Amino acid sequence: MGSRRLRLALVGFGHVGRAFARLLPGAFARGLRDAGLAPVVTGIATSRHGSAIDPRGLDLAAAEEIASQGGDLRQLHRGRPPRGTLEFVASVPADVLLEVTPLDPRRGEPATRHVRRALERGLHVVTANKGPVAFSLSSLLVLARRRRRRFLFEGAVMDGVPVFNLVRSCLPGVRVLGFRGVLNTTTTRILAGVESGRRFEDALADARRDGVAEADPSLDVDGWDAAVKTCALANALLDASLRPDRLARRGIAGLRPAAVRAARRSGGAIRLVARARRAGRRVAAQVGPERLAAFDVLASERADGVLVLETDLLGEIGIYQGPSGVEQTAYALFSDLLSLAAPRR
Amino acid sequence: MGSRRLRLALVGFGHVGRAFARLLPGAFARGLRDAGLAPVVTGIATSRHGSAIDPRGLDLAAAEEIASQGGDLRQLHRGRPPRGTLEFVASVPADVLLEVTPLDPRRGEPATRHVRRALERGLHVVTANKGPVAFSLSSLLVLARRRRRRFLFEGAVMDGVPVFNLVRSCLPGVRVLGFRGVLNTTTTRILAGVESGRRFEDALADARRDGVAEADPSLDVDGWDAAVKTCALANALLDASLRPDRLARRGIAGLRPAAVRAARRSGGAIRLVARARRAGRRVAAQVGPERLAAFDVLASERADGVLVLETDLLGEIGIYQGPSGVEQTAYALFSDLLSLAAPRR
Repeated sequence: MGSRRLRLALVGFGHVGRAFARLLPGAFARGLRDAGLAPVVTGIATSRHGSAIDPRGLDLAAAEEIASQGGDLRQLHRGRPPRGTLEFVASVPADVLLEVTPLDPRRGEPATRHVRRALERGLHVVTANKGPVAFSLSSLLVLARRRRRRFLFEGAVMDGVPVFNLVRSCLPGVRVLGFRGVLNTTTTRILAGVESGRRFEDALADARRDGVAEADPSLDVDGWDAAVKTCALANALLDASLRPDRLARRGIAGLRPAAVRAARRSGGAIRLVARARRAGRRVAAQVGPERLAAFDVLASERADGVLVLETDLLGEIGIYQGPSGVEQTAYALFSDLLSLAAPRR
Repeated sequence: MGSRRLRLALVGFGHVGRAFARLLPGAFARGLRDAGLAPVVTGIATSRHGSAIDPRGLDLAAAEEIASQGGDLRQLHRGRPPRGTLEFVASVPADVLLEVTPLDPRRGEPATRHVRRALERGLHVVTANKGPVAFSLSSLLVLARRRRRRFLFEGAVMDGVPVFNLVRSCLPGVRVLGFRGVLNTTTTRILAGVESGRRFEDALADARRDGVAEADPSLDVDGWDAAVKTCALANALLDASLRPDRLARRGIAGLRPAAVRAARRSGGAIRLVARARRAGRRVAAQVGPERLAAFDVLASERADGVLVLETDLLGEIGIYQGPSGVEQTAYALFSDLLSLAAPRR
């Protein structure tokens, strides 16, 4: 099969971006080549390590080493350097923008700006960033359609586990009526820690030490991360137009440790549960702690996420994600890139 | 979009076949027409209600009424009646055979014969029957490839929940290394009944009354049903060549009720667990009762099935099926038919 060159530009080069760069030359490139695509990374933009563009393709191993040692990517750059990330997005010679910047979940930026700018200039956009999906999905999809480009975001929720692709590719004719899920790993870890006798603060410290918690732990504890995921899912699966900053949201900070332990002793568990449901033309959604019964699938142990879809033709379908890492998110980017090769259904 | 006529012949007209016939004129036909296919059922063969062929299309409502009242489908037949089901399969004017006969899980027949004969004469085959997949998948796939036809079987395990399609369509490049699952609803119901104080026999009677148990309950209790599903999954997802009659298989009949209740009291649960795993070039698999820990996703309540795939790139991905019925299985037939419209990837 003949190969078509696929020029990729990365915005953001943190854990996910670097995992992608590490995996691209091996398994991912093989898969893409089998689908007729020859990937090359022509640009990387970061806020802290500078940016680099090389139309002939960047040396990814060198880029990863520079970034991980705190160096400056500009030493890999050729030509006039772009001023800032938005100019990078507007000018990098690429076919696809991979958006993997850190997210401010209260505003969905700067990711949404990057996505919009890239679509406007006619790039496909693949993101693992839930912000644009949670804050602006419908307008971004309209923009993508107008430009005849794809906006793909499998990695936005549950990392590489195919949530959006499952519904799109494997459930033809099925209408999703609602969902419930436990989508934030940090709060699950904290509550499990409290159940086993840890103090709240110590359980949170454990989650941070394990690299699970957000840099700003209030984003987990106050339910922001779960709210953004809930809106992303509701917007994509229920055609909703929700925004995280308007969602009914309660975190776990106000829970009494004694209540958390009592729930566990009685066989159940308190978890931060996300819910959404069609109600006529509207979609009602919320995030808050709930007491789950023993053996509720949402309380499954060792889960980094559990999502149960309620559907019209198939009843309840649940998806369970085991312990997960950045490689899984990088896989989501790869699977989205692959679908650029396939004819759109 | 122009429509291509898609002639369907049903072998078997029990719960699943009738549910399909009931749903076809509405949602299913709409979905198929959107994909460019105009479905028409040209034949129905049964072992107890006779057979009917009409190249112009059978009246499905009439067929369903006749069958449900114990009548004979021959009154809908036109022309020389076929002698027996195999002659029906060999001669019915059709593009696709839908195989939905009852299964003898100890031998995988008569379904496998039907599938083979239909593929040989150049029909696509769609089945909700796990027997052919468990006993003869690789040879049937070879035959299908040679005839340039599809052999599709999404409904064989977990009804309409897309297990096989998930791996085929949504996990490109991912290698499934193994799986564990609770796949037999009857044994789960019996064990849950025993946990709550019922006698084994009474819990089994409950499951039969609810229409969950096989007509011959030993097929559930002795692990045959789970063994057939395990082989179907292993053959399709792990490229194994297992056969249910050679699988290490233990049922739940030998379990002591006191042990079942003690496991539950300590927060866990005993369930009939299916396991398979690649081991070099071989695949090791087994079915038997296991003690699951509290909050193991396999022990999820209200589940008609739970399957956890172990993969190389994505770690563990679980699929949970809520309470389910024949409509879900009928949906699997529909989703397989839809993929006959799509270009093969």
